[in-house]
Order: sequence, then structure tokens, then C-alpha cells
Amino acid sequence: MNFAMIFRILGWMLMFEAAFMAPSGVVAAIYHEGDVVWLICSMGICLAAGSVMVLVSRPKNKRIYAREGSVICALVWFLYSIFGAFPFFLAGYITDFIDAVFETASGFTTTGASILSDVEALPHWLLFWRSFTHWVGGMGILVFVMAIIPLAAGGSTMYLMKAESPGPSVKKMVPKAGQTAGILYKMYIGLTAIEAVLLLILGMPLFDSLCLTFGTAGTGGFAVLNSGLATYPISQQVVITIFMILFGTNFSVYYMIITGHIKDVPKVSEVMTYFSIIGVAIALITVTISHLYPSRLLALKDAAFQVASIITTTGYSTTDFELWPHFSKWVLVLLMFCGACAGSTGGGIKVSRIQVAVKTVIKELDNAIHPNNIRKIKYDGKPLEHSVLRGINVFIMAYFLMMALSILLISIDDFDLETNFTAVAATLNNIGPGLEKVGPTMNYSGYSGFSTCILIFDMIAGRLEILPVLILFSVHTWKDGDLFSRRGRNMKRMRREDEALLDEGF
Amino acid sequence: MNFAMIFRILGWMLMFEAAFMAPSGVVAAIYHEGDVVWLICSMGICLAAGSVMVLVSRPKNKRIYAREGSVICALVWFLYSIFGAFPFFLAGYITDFIDAVFETASGFTTTGASILSDVEALPHWLLFWRSFTHWVGGMGILVFVMAIIPLAAGGSTMYLMKAESPGPSVKKMVPKAGQTAGILYKMYIGLTAIEAVLLLILGMPLFDSLCLTFGTAGTGGFAVLNSGLATYPISQQVVITIFMILFGTNFSVYYMIITGHIKDVPKVSEVMTYFSIIGVAIALITVTISHLYPSRLLALKDAAFQVASIITTTGYSTTDFELWPHFSKWVLVLLMFCGACAGSTGGGIKVSRIQVAVKTVIKELDNAIHPNNIRKIKYDGKPLEHSVLRGINVFIMAYFLMMALSILLISIDDFDLETNFTAVAATLNNIGPGLEKVGPTMNYSGYSGFSTCILIFDMIAGRLEILPVLILFSVHTWKDGDLFSRRGRNMKRMRREDEALLDEGF
Repeated sequence: MNFAMIFRILGWMLMFEAAFMAPSGVVAAIYHEGDVVWLICSMGICLAAGSVMVLVSRPKNKRIYAREGSVICALVWFLYSIFGAFPFFLAGYITDFIDAVFETASGFTTTGASILSDVEALPHWLLFWRSFTHWVGGMGILVFVMAIIPLAAGGSTMYLMKAESPGPSVKKMVPKAGQTAGILYKMYIGLTAIEAVLLLILGMPLFDSLCLTFGTAGTGGFAVLNSGLATYPISQQVVITIFMILFGTNFSVYYMIITGHIKDVPKVSEVMTYFSIIGVAIALITVTISHLYPSRLLALKDAAFQVASIITTTGYSTTDFELWPHFSKWVLVLLMFCGACAGSTGGGIKVSRIQVAVKTVIKELDNAIHPNNIRKIKYDGKPLEHSVLRGINVFIMAYFLMMALSILLISIDDFDLETNFTAVAATLNNIGPGLEKVGPTMNYSGYSGFSTCILIFDMIAGRLEILPVLILFSVHTWKDGDLFSRRGRNMKRMRREDEALLDEGF
Repeated sequence: MNFAMIFRILGWMLMFEAAFMAPSGVVAAIYHEGDVVWLICSMGICLAAGSVMVLVSRPKNKRIYAREGSVICALVWFLYSIFGAFPFFLAGYITDFIDAVFETASGFTTTGASILSDVEALPHWLLFWRSFTHWVGGMGILVFVMAIIPLAAGGSTMYLMKAESPGPSVKKMVPKAGQTAGILYKMYIGLTAIEAVLLLILGMPLFDSLCLTFGTAGTGGFAVLNSGLATYPISQQVVITIFMILFGTNFSVYYMIITGHIKDVPKVSEVMTYFSIIGVAIALITVTISHLYPSRLLALKDAAFQVASIITTTGYSTTDFELWPHFSKWVLVLLMFCGACAGSTGGGIKVSRIQVAVKTVIKELDNAIHPNNIRKIKYDGKPLEHSVLRGINVFIMAYFLMMALSILLISIDDFDLETNFTAVAATLNNIGPGLEKVGPTMNYSGYSGFSTCILIFDMIAGRLEILPVLILFSVHTWKDGDLFSRRGRNMKRMRREDEALLDEGF
């Protein structure tokens, strides 16, 4: 394990966090907010800590491998959450540091769960920072940074990407990782700009339109009003509904459109399934809630908004869906687990994994009837490789084990089952609001420090799709440090094999 | 598909159901209960329907294959539940026929969920029938019958066993299926007798001790008093606690003990894990509930009873655990999902499947760090075959998909999430009581006819471990009837392969 190199990269990342804080300073200047001094302090802390880490570490070699990539990837989210909490904590708007870390982790992981009961009390610069973390987190901190500077590590950034990218498999659109990231973030910025401009045209103030667009783009969910999105005009709610769905779509579709392969889009079964699920869910909910609304069209508007908000794991709300019938609520809970497309900014299990799970069960039924009928599961016309299938199986198991354990640990606080169940579901799937005591009109401040830590962990684990975070707890990750021990020689051999893998462009 | 043979076997099974009703007649004679006439009517219905089915069907050949085995296996549980409901319905103690089927399905599947609010209103013969269904269902209707008569079908009973036996793999203790079944039911009868005698010695009335022993042996959970088991002396509760745990143990352990291989027992990791889980759960619950009890020993007694009752999916209760802290309740919910050992009478996911799931995740973590380190998952010292692993993965996926869909369908009744979630968990895992409106002091009568049907389906699906029941819904199961169609010729070839498999003693 190349500890020095890990330390060095983390140091660089921390200095970038200071840079990410800068736009909030501009907001403070515009609104003449004096307590921005705490933002500047926080930037100083990030810069100081970052430069010390870079200066102190003296890596003997600069190569990083799969295990280093995983470790960096997991640690950077914890680091960003902790250091990003300083503006909230120093300015005194969140008095408990763990709560401040929760709020920041919720931002970077694009969860959108909040411990604040009165967001309107925050100054503009802090609200901006809160929403901006969504935007930074949306595309993955690393992918973002990687596109700006080629890290000192050389060509091995693909390992970082691999652990970071949401979804069962990384689809490399172009051969080089840096290039892929570049295209991704261009599309991301492009869509963000279009949404913000549309909202401005429809009469939303610039500040609101920027913050809400950041929340939509990252599928995060932090709003700037205590009422969420309920008081914005219907036209603006409709635009946000559409953009939530767009940001939950597999980005490879946009790449196809840009490169003129628009007629291939209907062949991407994940996206088609995603749209079908959205359609069915909106129809089911509209039917069951329409008696609560003056007109069916208004019911449709709220149903569509809430379905888009939950399936993409954004978590915005225009209405208190706690008051909806239980059937509609369970549809929303199922959408929480389903999640958006792989290769999007959304969280959850992901549509493609659900598709493969259903296909696996159907295939097994066929198998039980025709035991000798060996047939591979196909996806988008191609047979699925065994390793992909195994990855999905392991993910689903790890996911449910983690969920069961998290609920057990937070239930020490003695909240009811529905609150605990949906709190874990909403953080592990990066959604935001749950039901009952963590419902859309409530917040997470009721949980103890211990439970808050568990939920912070769940948010980061959910964002990184669990395994990269669990690796931090594996003994094997840490004990292979010494290259000269007996085990070390074995490691050397394996490193050579890793390297070979790397050279193949894997 | 050999429909004639399926029909014939189901007819035979139905006549056996009439025979299973006979002991209840004896009970009625002892207690001089006049309305036993409805039992005799029900027996007549079973006999008449059964003999018509046997006489009408004229199978051209008597061979049955994997697909016929699965279909018979699934259908027989539905058939038994429907015909076994007649005593409740005709005698007028359950006025809604669907509710009566629910009660009977709950008996045969050893779930123990009830729609009755006042069981003491039932005559002795009907209470006896209710509990006796647990005992019959416990070892699986088919395994039971198979041990008594070698079916007309010849040597192909292993296919029936395969679909029927709980747990990830059938461990054949002796080469012939009939012999295995014989050993199983001898051990089953032996343990049943010991428990009943012990309870008698401790002063329990004969009727109660028989009924409660049937409920323990089948890990069912129907009691004979409205208060459940709360009013029985502590000594009797302790005996029942111990026997619940024993009936949830993998029966191959008893076979080892009988055949003098007692020193191999600690090598059966599933049983060791099962006991460890029980120990940890009892300790955790005792600590969290002790403030509710006058002494820690009484807390321990109730904790042990409830843990044994839930992990073995029996569902007896000595206390209203709705009043316990949420941490204890979530421990119980986790035990609901965990379930007992494979190869026992209990339900749930099964300890061995959980073990393999955990091992899979751990192995994958290792893999992520050492990508070239190919290592098979071992279980009890032997590497796990790919087909077993795949079976477990598919089971877990089918299980969660089924659970999600069931909750969605019953939530149309607009009960709260906790009620619906635990109702499905308690029926799919064959436990009995859930939480909230289906908690230990409540019953399932609040659900509509539609939801009751869904829950009946879940009980049977849970008992048969899902896939055999889902096969009933596969088009492939039914459309291959014609051996002379183009598809049929293909089928002929596959049948030959099946036959080859059969000859190998698979």
C-alpha cells in the first residue's frame, strides 16, 4: 500500500475543496454578508491542512493501484465532509460538529437530508455553499478534479473512476479516463446551464435558480426555503420535474445524441425501463391521490414531481406526501430502492441492477423447468459476463446486510420502525427525506450523535455503492504495507499482475 | 407435461388429507362434541374429490420429471389449504371462506398467523385439527406421505423432495429418497413424543400438551388459549423454548448423533452459527428489556422464549413484545428474516444462506484488493459449487422482489407501513405474528379478501422457498404439453436428458 501517495493525493484534494468554497465568497460579497469571514477561515484550514499533507508525504514511487484507488476514493468523501462542515460550524449556524458533518456529507453525497429546521435563517453564502456541495458531489469529486488536472500519479486515474462511477459497470465512452471525465462534465455543465437559464426566464430569482439547479443536477435536494419547493409557480416546478428526470438518465444517452447516434437511444433498455417505471408510478399515484386535490391535473403535477424527485433520489418536495394513502407511499418507498439509471448522478440500487435481478429470476425459473437448457442472460442484446452478474449479486447482498445492521444500530435511539427504516433507506440511497419523524416536513436532528455517524457512513457508502467503503474495514487492505516481508514478495508478484492489467487499459 | 399423472397424484394426496382429519374425530368423541359432524362432512368432501380425480385420470405413462414434481409440490399446498378449510367453514366458526383458507394455509405452512380473535370459542376437535395441520405441514406433506407409501410413480420421488425440502441444498443422508424421508419422520415423531411427555410430566393437560407440541414441532405457532402461552408455568415455557430451538436445528445433526458421529456435530457450521445468533440475540434483548421486568431472570426467560420463537419462525408468544424498546423489536425483525437452519422445520431465509451471503461479500472485498487472487468460497471445509451459489443469489433476489410486490398489493387496504411490512415478513417467513395491527395480541382479520389471498400466497411461497411456486406462473411450465408439435420434439430430447439425470440417482 502506497501510503505516502494516498496522503499526497488527499492533500491535493483538500486544497481543491478550498477552491470549491470560493464561489460562496462571491455570493457573500454581492449580499454584503459579514460573517463570510468564517468561510475564509474554513478555506484557510483546508489549504493549510492540504499543503501540510502534500509537503510531508514523500512517495518513493508514484504508481497507485486498485487498492490505493479504492482507499483514496472512500477517504476523500469522509475528508470533504469533515472539512466542508467548518463553514456551518464556525459561523455558528450548526452548533454540533457531528450535525455539521452530517449536513455536509448529505450535500456532497447528494442525499439532501438535513438536520436544519429553519434553512431560511442561513445567510446566502452558506445556503449557496450547501447547495454547491450537491453540484460538486453530483459528478463525483474525483471525476470532476481529474478532468481539471492530470494527477501526479500518471495514467492510473481509471482506478479512481472505477470505484467512483455509479452503476454496475463503467462504460468507457472514449479510451482515456481523463477524456471520459471531460466529456461527462461538459454535458453536466451544459445541462446545468440550460436548467438555470430556463428557471430565470420563468421568473425565478437568480440565487434560487442557481441553488435549485445545483440540487437538481446533483440529484441532491437541498432547497433554500423552509417550504421546500411548494411555493414556486407550477411552471417552475414542471421544469424542475423534467430536469430531475434528465439528470437521472444514463449520461451515455446524451453522448449518443451529441455524436449523432440518436436512433440508438431506444436500444438502451435501462433508459427505456426507467421512463416506463416513471410513467407507471405517476399513473398509479395520480389515481390514488386525485381525491385529495381540486383537479386531477394538480394531482398529476404533484405525483410527477414526487416520483421524479424520489426515483432520481433528489428528494425535493412540493407537498407533504406523509398525508398520501399508504399505497402511494409504498410506491415511493419502492422507487427509493429502485433509484435512477447507472451512469447518472442519481443513487439507489439503479434500474439496470433491478433489470438484471428480474432477468436472473426469470432465467432460473426457465432453468428449473428445462434443467439442461443452458442460456446466458442477455442485456441490451449482449450476453452478460459472469463477473458483472457476480458484482450485482454481491452488491445486493452487501446492500441488504448493511441496511439491516444500520437500522439495528440507530434503533438504539428508540424511534419507531418506520422512521428508522426510511431514515436508513433515504440515506443509503442518497434520497433525503424519509417518512414519519424524518418525513418531508421533518428533519434528522432528533437522532443522537452515534446514530448521526451511522447515517453519515450510510450516505457515503451509498454514494460509492458500498464495496469501496467496506474495503476500508478489510484487514487485507492495510496489512500488505511491507514489501519486504514474506507476504510482501507475494504482493510484489500481484502488483506486477495489476500493472499488466493496467497496461491493457483496464 | 404429464397432466394426467399430476391429477392422479393430487387425487391421492386429497384422500390422505381425509385420513389426516381422522384424529380430530377421536378428540371430538372424547369431549362429546356434536358438531364434529362437519368434520365428517369435510372428510367426505376430500375423499369424494380425491377418488374422482384418481378415477378420472388415466395416465399413459407414469414417469414424472422435474417440472411435474415442482407443479405437484406447489399445487398440493393450495389444495390442502382449500380442502382443509372446510371444517372451519362448515362448522361456522369462520364465516368467510377465504379467511378459513388463510387459517388452514397458515396451519399447513406452519406460519401460525390467525384471523381468529377468540380461539377459545372453538371446540376441542377443531382446535386439534388447527394444531395438527402444523404437525403435518412441518415435515412437508409430501415427505410425510412418501415415507408411508411408495407412490405409484415409481422411483422418481426425489424430484418431489427436491422442491419440498427447506434450505439451499438437499443433503441425502442415505441413497434412496424414501429411506431419507423415513429417517426424517422417525426423528420428527421421536422429538415430538419426548416434548409431549415432558410437558405432561410438568403438569400440562394432555390436550394442551399435544396441541402445543404440534405447534412447536412444525415451528407453527397456533396456541389453544387467547393469551397465547403467557399463562403456562415457567417450567413449561422453558421446555417449549428448548424444543423450539431443537426443531429449528438442521436435522442432519440428529442423524449424526443417532449414528454415533456426535463428534462431527461441531463441524456443522450452520448449527454453530445458529446457536451463536440465538445467544447474542438473547443477550442483547435481555439487556434492553430488563428494566421492564421485576428481575433480570424473568427478562431472560421472556427474551429467550421470544428469540427462539421468532428465529425458528414458530411465532408463539408469552408477552406482548410490541411494548419492548424498538432496538429489541428490530432484533426480532432481523431474526424473522434470518430464520432457522436449512433441513429443519423452520422457515425464513435460513442461517446457511445468510452465512454464504456474508462470505460472498467478504470474498468480493478481498477480490477488489487482490484482483488476481482466485479463490472459491468454502462452506464446512468444502468449496461451494457455482450452482449452489447461483441458487442462493436467485433465491435472495426473488425473495426481495416478491416481498416488495406483496407489500405494494396489500397496501391498497391503507394500513400503515409497519403493519404491511411485518405482515408480509411474517407470512413469507412463516412466522405468524408481525408488529402493530398484526402484532402478537392482534390478528389478520382486518385485511380485505384480496390482501388475504396475497398473504395466503406468500405463506405457501415462503414454505416452498418461492421458486417452485413462481414456476406455476411461467408460461413455459404449461405450454410444452404437446409432445408431437415442433417444440414437442425438442422436449422429447430434453426428457431423455432428464431421464439420464434420473438414472444417475440425481
